[in-house]
Amino acid sequence: MGAPITLYVDSLFLSPYAMSVYVALTEKQLPFEVRPVDLEAGEQRMQPFQCRALTTRVPALTHADFNLTESSVIAEYLDEVFPAPAHAALYPADTRQRARARQIQAWLRSDLGALRQERPTETVFYGKAGQPLSDAAHAAAAKLIHVASLLVGVDQTALFDTWSIADTDLAVMLKRLSLDDLPDPLRAYADAQWQRPSVQKWLEHNAAARA
Amino acid sequence: MGAPITLYVDSLFLSPYAMSVYVALTEKQLPFEVRPVDLEAGEQRMQPFQCRALTTRVPALTHADFNLTESSVIAEYLDEVFPAPAHAALYPADTRQRARARQIQAWLRSDLGALRQERPTETVFYGKAGQPLSDAAHAAAAKLIHVASLLVGVDQTALFDTWSIADTDLAVMLKRLSLDDLPDPLRAYADAQWQRPSVQKWLEHNAAARA
Repeated sequence: MGAPITLYVDSLFLSPYAMSVYVALTEKQLPFEVRPVDLEAGEQRMQPFQCRALTTRVPALTHADFNLTESSVIAEYLDEVFPAPAHAALYPADTRQRARARQIQAWLRSDLGALRQERPTETVFYGKAGQPLSDAAHAAAAKLIHVASLLVGVDQTALFDTWSIADTDLAVMLKRLSLDDLPDPLRAYADAQWQRPSVQKWLEHNAAARA
Repeated sequence: MGAPITLYVDSLFLSPYAMSVYVALTEKQLPFEVRPVDLEAGEQRMQPFQCRALTTRVPALTHADFNLTESSVIAEYLDEVFPAPAHAALYPADTRQRARARQIQAWLRSDLGALRQERPTETVFYGKAGQPLSDAAHAAAAKLIHVASLLVGVDQTALFDTWSIADTDLAVMLKRLSLDDLPDPLRAYADAQWQRPSVQKWLEHNAAARA
């Protein structure tokens, strides 16, 4: 029985970054409590959340007396504190593959802004159609498809030798284009990620919050 | 004599992310070649850069036959391949401090967008004054100062026990407010970072590119 873990997520379970940490904790089979934070009411800027989360953003993790925000950073922390083989690995063991997994995560968090804006996760989780893509979002979609196609071949269900958390993040980004054009191998890859029990559990939370 | 290292940077030496990797390589005392990429001419989307850099962004690193983009990811890679004590450490050795250093980096790369836009690095490197901050940028500046003030006390010259690459990144973000209001301890902290020989070498490149 380890120190308690609490994961703070947006109360609508729409944040792809909260989802990423939720999946990470679930893949590691760690017991944790989920605490919704009402972003629309500004709860992230109020106590007690504000003093737990330095950057006042979700997701935030509390592990014993240690607080941490930023999803990819939390994944790195979990992989260090709860390492393989006792727990599932979130990152590849090989140095170069690990670097490539981090590269995907960092890129998805800092590029393709127009696509993220015009195809929010309501598209991903609710199947909500959006307006036609603007030129900027169209360019971002083209870049995403180009890069993902370099990484994901036909019938490929993981970026590297085994699953990594970068697979979840890439699948979410691809799912933003579910109702737009998405090449078959990429659609199949994202769908395969969606079948993981850890992702399905997140989707259940999402559906329950919507109901 | 190790495998050759090439760092691709924007040809104006204005990218804070290119600077971060430049400083990382210099702190590690690794020999490397600097290759400018002309972003205004779209060289990042042309060969040969495009096939070297998966995400077609600077900075990009080539180490032997391995290519990598995304500045914080390159820093992690360098810290794994050229570890302390033979080379300077870029991240703290302690798990929690390392997580906090990564947290700062990830936050600076994914938040405060209005401040980054209205106080571009021309402000930092050229001392170029900008328009008064918009409401959004003002809020970002207030958040930056709030968070940084929680981390940096009077006469403190590093976030953690020893210098880390997060110090360079935080200093650059703070320097965006050089001509605005910046509390004295934060100004002194950023100025102390600026005195590091690794940062001074970057500034020489920047000045030469401007001349």
